[in-house]
Amino acid sequence: MPYQLNNRFKMFTLNSNQTLAAEMAELLGCELGKCSVTKFSDGEIQIHIEESVRGSEVFIVQSTSYPVNENIMELLIMLDSLKRASARTINVVIPYFGYGRQDRKARSREPITAKLVSNLLEAAGATRVLTMDLHTPQLQGFFDIPVDHLFGVPILTQYFKNKGLDNIVVVAPHNGSIGRARKMANLLHAPLALIDKRKLEENEYEILNVIGNVEGKNAIIIDDLIDTAETITSAAKALAEYGATSIYAGCTHPVFTEQAIEKIQLSAIKELVVTNTIELPEEKLIGKIKMISVAPLLVEAIDRIHNEKAVSPLFE
Amino acid sequence: MPYQLNNRFKMFTLNSNQTLAAEMAELLGCELGKCSVTKFSDGEIQIHIEESVRGSEVFIVQSTSYPVNENIMELLIMLDSLKRASARTINVVIPYFGYGRQDRKARSREPITAKLVSNLLEAAGATRVLTMDLHTPQLQGFFDIPVDHLFGVPILTQYFKNKGLDNIVVVAPHNGSIGRARKMANLLHAPLALIDKRKLEENEYEILNVIGNVEGKNAIIIDDLIDTAETITSAAKALAEYGATSIYAGCTHPVFTEQAIEKIQLSAIKELVVTNTIELPEEKLIGKIKMISVAPLLVEAIDRIHNEKAVSPLFE
Amino acid sequence: MPYQLNNRFKMFTLNSNQTLAAEMAELLGCELGKCSVTKFSDGEIQIHIEESVRGSEVFIVQSTSYPVNENIMELLIMLDSLKRASARTINVVIPYFGYGRQDRKARSREPITAKLVSNLLEAAGATRVLTMDLHTPQLQGFFDIPVDHLFGVPILTQYFKNKGLDNIVVVAPHNGSIGRARKMANLLHAPLALIDKRKLEENEYEILNVIGNVEGKNAIIIDDLIDTAETITSAAKALAEYGATSIYAGCTHPVFTEQAIEKIQLSAIKELVVTNTIELPEEKLIGKIKMISVAPLLVEAIDRIHNEKAVSPLFE
Amino acid sequence: MPYQLNNRFKMFTLNSNQTLAAEMAELLGCELGKCSVTKFSDGEIQIHIEESVRGSEVFIVQSTSYPVNENIMELLIMLDSLKRASARTINVVIPYFGYGRQDRKARSREPITAKLVSNLLEAAGATRVLTMDLHTPQLQGFFDIPVDHLFGVPILTQYFKNKGLDNIVVVAPHNGSIGRARKMANLLHAPLALIDKRKLEENEYEILNVIGNVEGKNAIIIDDLIDTAETITSAAKALAEYGATSIYAGCTHPVFTEQAIEKIQLSAIKELVVTNTIELPEEKLIGKIKMISVAPLLVEAIDRIHNEKAVSPLFE
Amino acid sequence: MPYQLNNRFKMFTLNSNQTLAAEMAELLGCELGKCSVTKFSDGEIQIHIEESVRGSEVFIVQSTSYPVNENIMELLIMLDSLKRASARTINVVIPYFGYGRQDRKARSREPITAKLVSNLLEAAGATRVLTMDLHTPQLQGFFDIPVDHLFGVPILTQYFKNKGLDNIVVVAPHNGSIGRARKMANLLHAPLALIDKRKLEENEYEILNVIGNVEGKNAIIIDDLIDTAETITSAAKALAEYGATSIYAGCTHPVFTEQAIEKIQLSAIKELVVTNTIELPEEKLIGKIKMISVAPLLVEAIDRIHNEKAVSPLFE
Amino acid sequence: MPYQLNNRFKMFTLNSNQTLAAEMAELLGCELGKCSVTKFSDGEIQIHIEESVRGSEVFIVQSTSYPVNENIMELLIMLDSLKRASARTINVVIPYFGYGRQDRKARSREPITAKLVSNLLEAAGATRVLTMDLHTPQLQGFFDIPVDHLFGVPILTQYFKNKGLDNIVVVAPHNGSIGRARKMANLLHAPLALIDKRKLEENEYEILNVIGNVEGKNAIIIDDLIDTAETITSAAKALAEYGATSIYAGCTHPVFTEQAIEKIQLSAIKELVVTNTIELPEEKLIGKIKMISVAPLLVEAIDRIHNEKAVSPLFE
Repeated sequence: MPYQLNNRFKMFTLNSNQTLAAEMAELLGCELGKCSVTKFSDGEIQIHIEESVRGSEVFIVQSTSYPVNENIMELLIMLDSLKRASARTINVVIPYFGYGRQDRKARSREPITAKLVSNLLEAAGATRVLTMDLHTPQLQGFFDIPVDHLFGVPILTQYFKNKGLDNIVVVAPHNGSIGRARKMANLLHAPLALIDKRKLEENEYEILNVIGNVEGKNAIIIDDLIDTAETITSAAKALAEYGATSIYAGCTHPVFTEQAIEKIQLSAIKELVVTNTIELPEEKLIGKIKMISVAPLLVEAIDRIHNEKAVSPLFE
Repeated sequence: MPYQLNNRFKMFTLNSNQTLAAEMAELLGCELGKCSVTKFSDGEIQIHIEESVRGSEVFIVQSTSYPVNENIMELLIMLDSLKRASARTINVVIPYFGYGRQDRKARSREPITAKLVSNLLEAAGATRVLTMDLHTPQLQGFFDIPVDHLFGVPILTQYFKNKGLDNIVVVAPHNGSIGRARKMANLLHAPLALIDKRKLEENEYEILNVIGNVEGKNAIIIDDLIDTAETITSAAKALAEYGATSIYAGCTHPVFTEQAIEKIQLSAIKELVVTNTIELPEEKLIGKIKMISVAPLLVEAIDRIHNEKAVSPLFE
Repeated sequence: MPYQLNNRFKMFTLNSNQTLAAEMAELLGCELGKCSVTKFSDGEIQIHIEESVRGSEVFIVQSTSYPVNENIMELLIMLDSLKRASARTINVVIPYFGYGRQDRKARSREPITAKLVSNLLEAAGATRVLTMDLHTPQLQGFFDIPVDHLFGVPILTQYFKNKGLDNIVVVAPHNGSIGRARKMANLLHAPLALIDKRKLEENEYEILNVIGNVEGKNAIIIDDLIDTAETITSAAKALAEYGATSIYAGCTHPVFTEQAIEKIQLSAIKELVVTNTIELPEEKLIGKIKMISVAPLLVEAIDRIHNEKAVSPLFE
Repeated sequence: MPYQLNNRFKMFTLNSNQTLAAEMAELLGCELGKCSVTKFSDGEIQIHIEESVRGSEVFIVQSTSYPVNENIMELLIMLDSLKRASARTINVVIPYFGYGRQDRKARSREPITAKLVSNLLEAAGATRVLTMDLHTPQLQGFFDIPVDHLFGVPILTQYFKNKGLDNIVVVAPHNGSIGRARKMANLLHAPLALIDKRKLEENEYEILNVIGNVEGKNAIIIDDLIDTAETITSAAKALAEYGATSIYAGCTHPVFTEQAIEKIQLSAIKELVVTNTIELPEEKLIGKIKMISVAPLLVEAIDRIHNEKAVSPLFE
Repeated sequence: MPYQLNNRFKMFTLNSNQTLAAEMAELLGCELGKCSVTKFSDGEIQIHIEESVRGSEVFIVQSTSYPVNENIMELLIMLDSLKRASARTINVVIPYFGYGRQDRKARSREPITAKLVSNLLEAAGATRVLTMDLHTPQLQGFFDIPVDHLFGVPILTQYFKNKGLDNIVVVAPHNGSIGRARKMANLLHAPLALIDKRKLEENEYEILNVIGNVEGKNAIIIDDLIDTAETITSAAKALAEYGATSIYAGCTHPVFTEQAIEKIQLSAIKELVVTNTIELPEEKLIGKIKMISVAPLLVEAIDRIHNEKAVSPLFE
Repeated sequence: MPYQLNNRFKMFTLNSNQTLAAEMAELLGCELGKCSVTKFSDGEIQIHIEESVRGSEVFIVQSTSYPVNENIMELLIMLDSLKRASARTINVVIPYFGYGRQDRKARSREPITAKLVSNLLEAAGATRVLTMDLHTPQLQGFFDIPVDHLFGVPILTQYFKNKGLDNIVVVAPHNGSIGRARKMANLLHAPLALIDKRKLEENEYEILNVIGNVEGKNAIIIDDLIDTAETITSAAKALAEYGATSIYAGCTHPVFTEQAIEKIQLSAIKELVVTNTIELPEEKLIGKIKMISVAPLLVEAIDRIHNEKAVSPLFE
């Protein structure tokens, strides 16, 4: 076992990512902490930590994915339990940070829910956050506690490198994704293209244009998350119309709501690579979708945090 | 219209108690503030307040009843919106305060979720709480902002007074309810009895004994809330066995989960009086159950808060 | 010596419980830290810690018993000294937590002084609280720092078990004490009775009734504290009138104000068992009163906190 | 009545300065708010505010003089009551701020109690402080809420001006009082002298020297407070030895502990002028001591605060 | 005068934007508050507010532009003065928010200085922020106090509309500016192009490509700020090479450091439109540069804040 | 090497005191941490810590001397970086604490900038302060984190002892320096004199008088800092006029602004001893000025803090 954990180390999982947490525990060579999370008949969550955490350095694995409000409350209640049970540090591992898109006031009298959630986590007792691919990197600044922020682009890029594709163009499916696309393009020494769209209504887009040359190229669309899949499948359609030879796609967080799977199945996308920051049911793992585990990356980061080694090499 | 509201006054409702809020608005002679509360397909709540609240004294009506985690998050997000939209004061009207039973550590390494929720409300921006029949009065001390705490016992007692029952005994269905039963007994000049039970497992009880004399009397069981109805129907059964002539019951918060309605229907309880702090679907309002509105009481309190008159007369 | 203390450990006592603290130090096999607590002629307290506490894990023993305001200020000033002297952790051991009965607003415009004191302790620098038999368990939630809360019922019960009494009934002398009485009754496999009283004026009660069967039984009255002894001696009188064979009593905190000792002496109580959470002068330790030391229990808890072992076994 | 108070204004007094508060109320033309402050038999303070303060701008008059710890706790509990009773602002009028001399760490591992008290007042809910002659002006910076700081020197100086003394020298009885002496000397166009002393033990001094020329002059010793009177009477003795013609003295806060009155009576001081920031019993008002009321000054400041006019003219 | 200010209103300026503040005061029909800001010979700033602000609603105008650290400290010290002088609200008007580009950790062990500055402003006493064109909209979430965030795009767009240009293409000079370019393109019903660049070293860029069609079109480059002008003049060069007919540019904040003016003068840019959020010396206002005042916009927002009307119409 | 540092220890320096920090590192036998502090062309500071500080106990050396605002911002930004980079403790070593003279409101509507700076340091993440000769000792109370406060008087006194001067008088050049002069006089068993001055305008003084006997004596003037040198050279002039045989001077912090060096050169002062809490350029180190290093003292204190030994012996 390559990891050295001292006896202060404890890792717990809640309900969102039990498969991932189990894989992480196996990689670390530890057992998950015992903790019952139940619901009373009126929907109230009850948590009981079943082993001492006094003086422990606790890591809790919980994405705030669907059902997001349940998962947030579960996490906050766990934090309160750990704080009152005298844990020494409380490190929250949030592979997917929900509400990340509500990171600014798009209109007057809207909340900034991502900031609210950050404040709630600190108020409840979190002392550190480990997370992946925040919707915008500015979200780190929503916290006053240390945040270790890992990236999905290197993992996804490695996958495509291994495929041995040539003549690649990396495509940002919307404005907000250009940063990520630029990073992947650099890693692949490939050019960049952009789908320019005008937002008509919330969650619906009209594709205007493919900006940049995609004709005769193998296109890879890259995004942080796929929700309804409307954006990415429309992008694929446009790329096909503009003459792309083949169309691949990748994202870190497979949110996959509504008809996402059907749309992907019917789309021009040949293969879609995602990670397991959000736990997917079997039926969503259709043949076109390839899932890569982030467990090795998270485990490496946890080891570095626990042993107080620099986390920065993971970004290089 | 007996209420004088100045132009700073705004009242909003979220999703838990829309009928009650509408009734309150009608009594106050005001319109409810416009505010859209929607859910994205991934379960994230989006709130948009559709009228200016700059400088307003805002009251938000929201019980943290089932679905409790959704309702809490909805409320917290609304608080964030109001705070950022420059509301002058943010008064949270919580007719039923969920998680109130998680008010102490019953075992090691449990949370005190009621305190957590209090902290979250303050962290999100609440400046005052108006609530009813907290599970224990100590919960007021969980807040550092002012709390106005109204009681259901006077309303419920008045109902039974109006019925003209004589030869009454007031019954506490478990230890925690003796304070309320004592209050009602005083108001009715009636004696007190107690159901003594031993908790075997969470939400299940074994009735041990009726302590006090109930034979030949009209018994009124009083509690703050009814959840699965196991406690109150077992109490009714015991009272019948000990020779009570007739059995009535009253509670402020009709939580009513699982088979509660069926149990009540089949029980020895002749009539059960509840309030509308929690919104009930039509099908739960069976013939035995009488619902009294708390709107007049809440509205009176809001008027006094808004016009800076003492709220204390409402407790007398 | 069974306890292993590392060199960060320091224990100090202030003025309220010097005998108890000395006993605890002896059990732990350590010396009490050197610290002068003096009063200037104008009543201002001056504290000087006479040995380095830099990096230490400090435990301070101080009940906030009579003179309560002096003892609270002494404790707060000590906390300020320790914080500024760079103690690593500041663990406040409060065998008796004064002002615990002011835990809710009984009337409008009253303070919640128990919450105020909790806030003051945190503001002054406490990082953990170890206490016994809070007036209501909800008081734990008044703190945001960890609280380890020990119980007196097992100690008192053990004493009565050792006496070998049979045909016992456990009696709650007022509504607020039923929880404790239920616990003791469970431990003794005995039935429960309740003294039902109506509060007329502050600190005065009119006994209404003994609810439950006490005739021909050995009654044990149990409470968290005895203040003026009016409640418990009235209860004893009522039990005698209802035919109890013999009357014992137990409480954790012997507050004993006004004519308490005289009343106990003259009462029907055969023996009263108390603990030393509050230091009693010799003249109050009359023959009827048996004092049990909580030093072994507190010391066991301190050892577990210091060595980061679970405190929970002490509750079983 | 020269003062205009709106209906939000309320003034309360606690136990330290009831005579002064009554005088202030009379000058303001208002009644003192009704509030009961009682003690339970175990020494716990109970406060009940007997009229609504919802939305009020409350002023509380309380010196933290002897018994200082009781007076501080009384004030903190009152603040908690007012905060929970929804007062709009809570202005603490502290004519004499006790613990002001504990304003720095004179030795390692001492508290800075003056800062602690400032923190406690803010934690309990104070929104503004009005006080007089803090021991050092730096104490203002211990607060993060606004502090209005009034001075006693102009009042005391006016008294001596009215006496028509000539050939005056103003004397600082110790190093810490030179600032005040310099101010008074400026107002009287008089020279300055200094008593240089070396501290041997706490509260005891050995007079070394009179620095500056006092021979044949009318000396006025000025200090912020007189505690045991050891300092000021030793100063007077030294001045007499150095040939001062007559010796007067003045201070703002008459703490007067131990044998202060006897020492003053026996001393070379001809007349001592003090103010009523601390309430003195009749027997301490011996013939040599002249008391001037600060009520007019405090009332002027309160009026300016209440009506949002500049307080600064009171310093000129 | 169209603006109604009540007598609580006060507006102050510090040293960064005195011309703008004077223009704003004239538009509002008020005088700027009197306040001296001086520097001691050792560089320490001394502030003295020369008129009462007790109870006032104060607006302070200060960009945190060059010299940024002096301007931030000046602002923080002013906030401390106002807080201690009992201002009712302290509204900070920051036309240009410096350090806005340090909004995330680009590498490990970097600060998030924009968040730090936000925290400092809140710690010093700011109760509201009014600002323009934050570098990323997520910066709003760095504050927990209300932020009113105005946009420069509509002003700049209006200017180009007035020019009557046709056949326009709006160009984002780098990835981070696409959002703004998309907004302007929508307002002008024009297509979008993007300059794709790879960052080699801090503040240096290599232009890679113009993505999108610009040949034969009138290009308008839009950005939030221009610092060294390297980015925008390189963009202009690339556009010229790709056949743009004419090249215009616009930005809100003219930071203009190093050789910015020279580069602009020598570039292919025909006209550059900026605003006066940062005060420019005469010599930087060369013929090509057109400055539009934001005073009318800020003044309109201040009026709405002061009179508690919605600010949202300013965004439409 | 006498100092034992464990591997958590890291020491960094910023821009104010690099020579001192290098000397300290050499004495400690460690290397200074790698950290780049650069300025962008617009004056914004950029900090990048170039080695891991995760879990480290970090000491940062930075006086807030001229340019004071730059140095404060540099320090605050470094604190933010360290906090976000997961340093375990952040110990700020501030040999000269700027803004220390703004420690009270001398007039209405002034800031208390020393308190502001204390608050900013805590808000940014400092966990401890080590400093020297604060302008008034009350400044320690401006912090709620531990402050270790070292004194310059013993170092300066030792220097004069070593010179073997006899017939000494120690002179306080103004009221605020009497405490320090008294301490030095005690150490030298010498008498005390005082320069009494009346402040006419800010930074200008009119010397009134030398109080105390200096004729025929070797005078040593002692102060905490020398700024424009107006005070100390005027004092020297007065001493000469009053017949002092020779005049020496000493201070801890050589602020030296404006014509300070010229004035000192031309003055009656024979020798001036200062320390290196503020870094002086070569040209200010004229022949009359002797500089003593505080590195040994600071290093001793750091070692004691790091190894959790009492710092108090350094004060004896």
